[in-house]
Amino acid sequence: MKTIRLKTQSRTYEIKTGNKLLDSLGRFLKSPCFGQDAYIITNAALKRRYGARLGSALQSAGYSARFFLIPDSETSKSLNIASSVIKDLAAYDKNKRIFIVAFGGGVIGDVAGFIASIYKRGIPFIQIPTTLLAQVDSSIGGKTGVDLEAGKNLIGTFYQPALVLSDVQLLKSLDKRQLRSGLAEVIKYAAIMDAGLFRYLEKNIHRILESDLKAIEYVVGKCAGLKARIVQQDEKEQKGIRTILNFGHTIGHAIEAACCYKRYSHGEAIALGMLVSSDLSYKLGMLGKKAVQRIEKLIIKAGLPVKLNKVNPQSIIRAHYRDKKFIGRKNRFVLLSDIGRCKVRQNISLKAIRESLKKIL
Amino acid sequence: MKTIRLKTQSRTYEIKTGNKLLDSLGRFLKSPCFGQDAYIITNAALKRRYGARLGSALQSAGYSARFFLIPDSETSKSLNIASSVIKDLAAYDKNKRIFIVAFGGGVIGDVAGFIASIYKRGIPFIQIPTTLLAQVDSSIGGKTGVDLEAGKNLIGTFYQPALVLSDVQLLKSLDKRQLRSGLAEVIKYAAIMDAGLFRYLEKNIHRILESDLKAIEYVVGKCAGLKARIVQQDEKEQKGIRTILNFGHTIGHAIEAACCYKRYSHGEAIALGMLVSSDLSYKLGMLGKKAVQRIEKLIIKAGLPVKLNKVNPQSIIRAHYRDKKFIGRKNRFVLLSDIGRCKVRQNISLKAIRESLKKIL
Repeated sequence: MKTIRLKTQSRTYEIKTGNKLLDSLGRFLKSPCFGQDAYIITNAALKRRYGARLGSALQSAGYSARFFLIPDSETSKSLNIASSVIKDLAAYDKNKRIFIVAFGGGVIGDVAGFIASIYKRGIPFIQIPTTLLAQVDSSIGGKTGVDLEAGKNLIGTFYQPALVLSDVQLLKSLDKRQLRSGLAEVIKYAAIMDAGLFRYLEKNIHRILESDLKAIEYVVGKCAGLKARIVQQDEKEQKGIRTILNFGHTIGHAIEAACCYKRYSHGEAIALGMLVSSDLSYKLGMLGKKAVQRIEKLIIKAGLPVKLNKVNPQSIIRAHYRDKKFIGRKNRFVLLSDIGRCKVRQNISLKAIRESLKKIL
Repeated sequence: MKTIRLKTQSRTYEIKTGNKLLDSLGRFLKSPCFGQDAYIITNAALKRRYGARLGSALQSAGYSARFFLIPDSETSKSLNIASSVIKDLAAYDKNKRIFIVAFGGGVIGDVAGFIASIYKRGIPFIQIPTTLLAQVDSSIGGKTGVDLEAGKNLIGTFYQPALVLSDVQLLKSLDKRQLRSGLAEVIKYAAIMDAGLFRYLEKNIHRILESDLKAIEYVVGKCAGLKARIVQQDEKEQKGIRTILNFGHTIGHAIEAACCYKRYSHGEAIALGMLVSSDLSYKLGMLGKKAVQRIEKLIIKAGLPVKLNKVNPQSIIRAHYRDKKFIGRKNRFVLLSDIGRCKVRQNISLKAIRESLKKIL
């Protein structure tokens, strides 16, 4: 087991990564701030598979446990769902010592974190991520959110969990597409921050796709550490540091939006976005050709898409203007200067973006 | 004009109190973090009276201004209203440089602050309180909230404004009942923290009730300073310091709840709560009889109620157990040890509470 300490202005907490941690959950909850009543937000499939183990890990340590199931899809990220959870939560909260457990992937983490942040002006919550993407990325750093018709994550808060418990054994049951989607974020971390991790992936990515838990444990621990380092320096994305985690996301989000969040998973869209950003970096004279090829090769090895399928590039351009992070209509791209090094650039010309989009057409 | 600087973990901001400040709003918004588009949340009556002035103060300083009206009642503190405001806000937010102006009393401040805290994980907001209660208390300190059927302010955040502008001229049009309600909180500050202010009130409270703006300006500046001092030490009410601001509130909230938030205004209920807490302090041997009498006399002078009217004391006892701040079913009272000095005590016996409730029967 690896323990990473993340210290932010608002809270200091631990991220524990390793194999077979779930059954020991009780002993990680020793801190008195957690309360005594666990309110677990998850979905039906996860409850069926792990509910009994999770419940008894809590109960044997003296906690009560109540499950609330939300649908396993992006539609769960709504104010309506949040509101119905909170009503149930308030009814359960008799002893006023309640805490929330987010048991699931990114959607569950986002909505459960949001609920924890607004119920009684904030109660403790724990992330137990069950997808590779959530373990390496979304469970860490306190971004919570629900969607509006006008855009994804338009409502949300920065609210840090009290603990992140990433048990790679929970990933054993993931299908290949889910693993690949998570791998896109792993490749992102390697590309922007860690040339050593990039080389590790070049050699070992097949092991991850074969659900080799040793290899998965290694990358989960590695990425969690990288993410913690960034969040620690710029919790609320105000200093331009946390921004680098958006490598591949400007175009990636636009692809997701242009396809109405249907055709591509988040990771698949990010993979395509990283290809465009790498090409942009090359064409702007920042990145060598060989590095661009290594990135493309790794994305192919991960089984992630490298070409867009039936999407009009103009619809991607249009969508990229609606990105909620644009300020005063200026776009913003994270570009690479080498494998493992990056820079944030604003106001990239439309012409350059169109040129680099051809890379994935 | 008086400027108070409030420094919290999450934000440092200024509270400006004085007379005729509204028209100069533009020059207080110089900081670049405010954005360029002002989204003003207020009610119809306030817009009718001050909308043109507020709009032109903003526009002449180069800001755009859009008004959104919400009903002037506690029913506005709902997730539904918040959600409809946010939909309109998102549609207006074209240039992504939007900030919120809460122009109103406590209800508007609470819901506008909540919206600012959850829209895009937090955008800047300004408090321009228009009631005495909001100027001396609720506009400062970052407590935001909306209600659930299960309880008031069950949903909310800690989210500090970027500026509080308290223009006492806006209080000129308040009716006596609103002034009295605000005075209850003023008496609270004096009783728990400032014997000098208490003496000032004993001599000058009639001037406030006659809308003497000089006297009002004095107490608004004084109370804002006291509140800032407390919030600075304990922003999120975790250290037992901010707790003292709940003097009179344990029973006050219970009275409001027992009357379904209808018969008594917040200030009136707090006045009754302060009488009970003073009596409790006396009966527990903490406070002298003379001090108790001075408090009662001041509350009478303020024109606030000193006796309950047709409320079953048992319903107050029942309601006080539902207070969201009780931990593990323990009640918590702020008690006085002198005029201007207080202590927090937990687990006061039911018998003692029942005895002291007789004070207001």
